[in-house]
Amino acid sequence: MTVIEESTLLPNGLTVDAARAESARAYELDRAHVFHSWSAQAEITPMTISAAQGSYLWDGEGNRLLDFSSQLVNTNIGHQHPKVVAAIAEQAAKLCTVAPQHANAARSEAARLIAERTPGELNKIFFTNGGADAVEHAVRMARLHTGRYKVLSRYRAYHGGTDTAINLTGDPRRWPNDRGNAGVVHFNGPFLYRSSFYAETEEQESQRALEYLEKLIQMEGPSTIAAIILESIPGTAGIMIPPPGYMAGVREICTRYGIVFIADEVMSGFGRSGKWFSINHFDVTPDLMTFAKGVNSGYVPLGGVAINPEIAETFAHRAYPGGLTYSGHPLATAAAIATINAMEDEGMVDNAATVGTEVIGPGLAALADKHPSIGEVRGAGVFWAVELVKDRATREPLAAYGGSSPAMNAVVAACKAGGLLPFANFNRIHVVPPCNVSADEVREGLAILDAALDVADAAL
Amino acid sequence: MTVIEESTLLPNGLTVDAARAESARAYELDRAHVFHSWSAQAEITPMTISAAQGSYLWDGEGNRLLDFSSQLVNTNIGHQHPKVVAAIAEQAAKLCTVAPQHANAARSEAARLIAERTPGELNKIFFTNGGADAVEHAVRMARLHTGRYKVLSRYRAYHGGTDTAINLTGDPRRWPNDRGNAGVVHFNGPFLYRSSFYAETEEQESQRALEYLEKLIQMEGPSTIAAIILESIPGTAGIMIPPPGYMAGVREICTRYGIVFIADEVMSGFGRSGKWFSINHFDVTPDLMTFAKGVNSGYVPLGGVAINPEIAETFAHRAYPGGLTYSGHPLATAAAIATINAMEDEGMVDNAATVGTEVIGPGLAALADKHPSIGEVRGAGVFWAVELVKDRATREPLAAYGGSSPAMNAVVAACKAGGLLPFANFNRIHVVPPCNVSADEVREGLAILDAALDVADAAL
Ligand SMILES: Cc1ncc(COP(=O)(O)O)c(C=O)c1O
Ligand SMILES: Cc1ncc(COP(=O)(O)O)c(C=O)c1O
Repeated sequence: MTVIEESTLLPNGLTVDAARAESARAYELDRAHVFHSWSAQAEITPMTISAAQGSYLWDGEGNRLLDFSSQLVNTNIGHQHPKVVAAIAEQAAKLCTVAPQHANAARSEAARLIAERTPGELNKIFFTNGGADAVEHAVRMARLHTGRYKVLSRYRAYHGGTDTAINLTGDPRRWPNDRGNAGVVHFNGPFLYRSSFYAETEEQESQRALEYLEKLIQMEGPSTIAAIILESIPGTAGIMIPPPGYMAGVREICTRYGIVFIADEVMSGFGRSGKWFSINHFDVTPDLMTFAKGVNSGYVPLGGVAINPEIAETFAHRAYPGGLTYSGHPLATAAAIATINAMEDEGMVDNAATVGTEVIGPGLAALADKHPSIGEVRGAGVFWAVELVKDRATREPLAAYGGSSPAMNAVVAACKAGGLLPFANFNRIHVVPPCNVSADEVREGLAILDAALDVADAAL
Repeated sequence: MTVIEESTLLPNGLTVDAARAESARAYELDRAHVFHSWSAQAEITPMTISAAQGSYLWDGEGNRLLDFSSQLVNTNIGHQHPKVVAAIAEQAAKLCTVAPQHANAARSEAARLIAERTPGELNKIFFTNGGADAVEHAVRMARLHTGRYKVLSRYRAYHGGTDTAINLTGDPRRWPNDRGNAGVVHFNGPFLYRSSFYAETEEQESQRALEYLEKLIQMEGPSTIAAIILESIPGTAGIMIPPPGYMAGVREICTRYGIVFIADEVMSGFGRSGKWFSINHFDVTPDLMTFAKGVNSGYVPLGGVAINPEIAETFAHRAYPGGLTYSGHPLATAAAIATINAMEDEGMVDNAATVGTEVIGPGLAALADKHPSIGEVRGAGVFWAVELVKDRATREPLAAYGGSSPAMNAVVAACKAGGLLPFANFNRIHVVPPCNVSADEVREGLAILDAALDVADAAL
């Protein structure tokens, strides 16, 4: 842990002492009044965050941590990017909010910048507040466009916390919310390391996963299926890059059966994997694409759906029956404009690609050579997973699917003690720093991870 | 329409010419790239809003309009309140975003300020991005707390645009989204002007509506019902203040049958009706309360659920299975802190009450005396509806339920031409200015409405 000079000012302008006092009060009020997501309220001790800058943040004690989580994989341009902070202040002074039925310069320009970057002709943008409502609205559009109801989604995937989105989700967070009536059918996607298809090569995995999907569609009845939703690269689930041919195959199946293909780019979009959108790796154009997080790095809540001309046309003379008070919010879209322009001007998407290829990839491969607890490393750009196992031969995970384990908790604790905040899920540590992370910061973080993995090795 | 001096600067700092150029471009890009809520995309011509200040806004031509819509009834402190604008800039410079699992000073303090104002012991706050997701999460909490599934909600009510929220909605926007599988049962609430119970007095209406609700519960099966959700004062539906005894009666029924009582204060909360929450008019404490809009006047997207101790306890040692990336967003909660403090310091809730009693109420009563097209006026605080009819005796609405009519469109157009932006829904004009509207501004607006109602009278 970095030793802190008491006189140092944190990036929030507070002395360490003042930040500690503020954080102590924040913690106390948090425990009294804040109800936390995904948690047993009496069993958590949240870490207070009092300041952040670039790839770093400061906890309530004034300790600096390298943020390899990008929070929930959303601060793609790092913390407190000065251009976006300035744009927020400027738009706040100009015009904070207008209702969605009116037009506004910030919303219009953000829509243009996003449409310019989406694949194909996904040129109409419906704005939401985050990822879950983007998914809800995309599904609604698909259902009304096709006149069909069922939606197919992948096991393990995450699509959000509202009722339809959590029912589309394929991880255990769905279970307490699943009453079997959401019109969702789940399927196995390709994941060679834990193949559902007894495959031994990426080609086999891809081909068998497509065969399985098409059979499933035939048995469910193509005429009952409105949409297939897929994260272009499943994120929280383990950054499982689809094998060659898979996404193109899904596209072809969707076209053939008149099914809407929804790409969920909420986590994988806006530079995360070294391209503007992860679907760009596969040269595929979905019919609808959801986004959030990276669109403005989460500085102001924003999400949305990019819509192709056919589906937009469905709602040309028939009202789209959905909306929300903050659709196309000026402050949120002004932050998106500044974010996208900063990413473009500062070459952040290219930086993500380069850092991934030249530093994170080789760095994690070296860790895998050294640590027997690593079963596999995989990823692209600044979007990497380290899969930890008890045994390389059996691939038994270091924490059961859906759970945690003392060994995993110890690895995370060792990372934090070393000055690194990782993103952890079940038996995985994800390396998901901002797109503008420097090579040196990555090396610093991987060195801390290296030491922490000794703890995992020791648990084998 | 106000005549504009070309040299005048708008509150956004632009000359009228510059604002016109910006707005022309905004409109063009809007039509090319923005997909609008609740609309047939090819049939709308959105008004551009280029600037706003206090109770006024400026359209794309530089015309000033008195904003009696508060946009979507959310700018309770008016446009561009300097304290909130400053707080947003300050928090943006300090720390824009942290993930929900961490603690943060802005979120903690906002939770404290809200909990301090909620009725009873609704002291735990789960933050969301808006009203719809607040409703989604409240329903989930109720379902898991009771182990029951069905939710009862009122016809005519509005609860949001995500799938569960739109299915709870009782207005026609639900219809294209309703497949009968959302676990919702709708009932008629009290509304004496268009009584479902053949009542002639408020007392009869209240008592019969309660009898009907209790019979419905008995027929549906009390053990199948997780929650009843009610807007404390139904807003978009027509600002139908529940008659004496109704809300207390619903509270008593819920307690007796072990049903969670959810008060939806998304529109009616934060000063709108002249009290912090509209439920305060009835001396009733719900089990869960949803809020959004007025909590920070919508300057940054924010919503949430206030939770009572019993329901919070359900999730003390069992994980709450729901969440979202921006739960308790620092920028959004910093705007809430500044908003609540400004409302308190500047006596805005009292102002709303006084303006309602002394100016809006009497003013609308005078209009009702004069204009045969007015069937009824009703409301409290800065939350009023003017119900327009073709015939006072038959009460036939000036536009059919769920629709519009040339006469209604003409009234709205006359308001705008006169310099007033009203909130219109079906056959109603709502008078919903900010809580800090001045008596003079109200008089100015009512004078414009007075002239516009001649158009309605002429259509009879
Ligand atoms: C792929 C994906 N979709 C949807 C969501 C939901 O987004 P939000 O949390 O903003 O509702 C997430 C959030 O992690 C996500 O990763
Ligand atoms: C009573 C009520 N509940 C919920 C909502 C949904 O809120 P949002 O539009 O922020 O999703 C609204 C919006 O008008 C509302 O009036």
